[in-house]
Amino acid sequence: MNPSAPLSRTPEAPYYAVIFTSLRTADDRGYDAMAMRMAALAASQTGYLGMDSVRDADGRGITVSYWRNEKSIRIWKANEEHQQAQQGGKLMWYSDYQVRIAKVERGYGKMQEAE
Amino acid sequence: MNPSAPLSRTPEAPYYAVIFTSLRTADDRGYDAMAMRMAALAASQTGYLGMDSVRDADGRGITVSYWRNEKSIRIWKANEEHQQAQQGGKLMWYSDYQVRIAKVERGYGKMQEAE
Repeated sequence: MNPSAPLSRTPEAPYYAVIFTSLRTADDRGYDAMAMRMAALAASQTGYLGMDSVRDADGRGITVSYWRNEKSIRIWKANEEHQQAQQGGKLMWYSDYQVRIAKVERGYGKMQEAE
Repeated sequence: MNPSAPLSRTPEAPYYAVIFTSLRTADDRGYDAMAMRMAALAASQTGYLGMDSVRDADGRGITVSYWRNEKSIRIWKANEEHQQAQQGGKLMWYSDYQVRIAKVERGYGKMQEAE
């Protein structure tokens, strides 16, 4: 991700979030190119609303992508090129990961008071 | 967070997640002590299920905390010491942040196939 990029803004809830937590291996083969490609490919999908992604120097990462509905998440998961990337993640790039699919019910930011 | 800590494991869905995305200022006054204290205080709250937190060298961070239900999230938000930390965050430590409250509907990990 572009380090100077702003935080994602999303429309009014409800919408969906996919929370992807991961630990990277030391195996860098093709990782950066895949990650950039997947970010661009996700952004081209119907129902995509945005993404926030952070990884620290120890290889611990959290990526949250935002989606209009569950259907758009299922179609993205089944995307053929994404399926290949998921296989690479399982076999090479991640020593561990967890995926959580969640319905965002409310939200607020620095400039807005919480409900 | 401990860099060698494993990724959080959570019980079967449904449960709740609070997704906190943030950009740090250069103002370090008291930040590390506050962050450690808040992690410990959150972990002592009723309904707390776990937390994953990453910040990169550019100051971009994502913290996801997991909770049994909405009530436990509201009580944690209203905690007096946490309220003081939130004020410090707004005034000193974060140039921007977004908070999203989401109901986790399903999840899977590296060792489990997706539904």
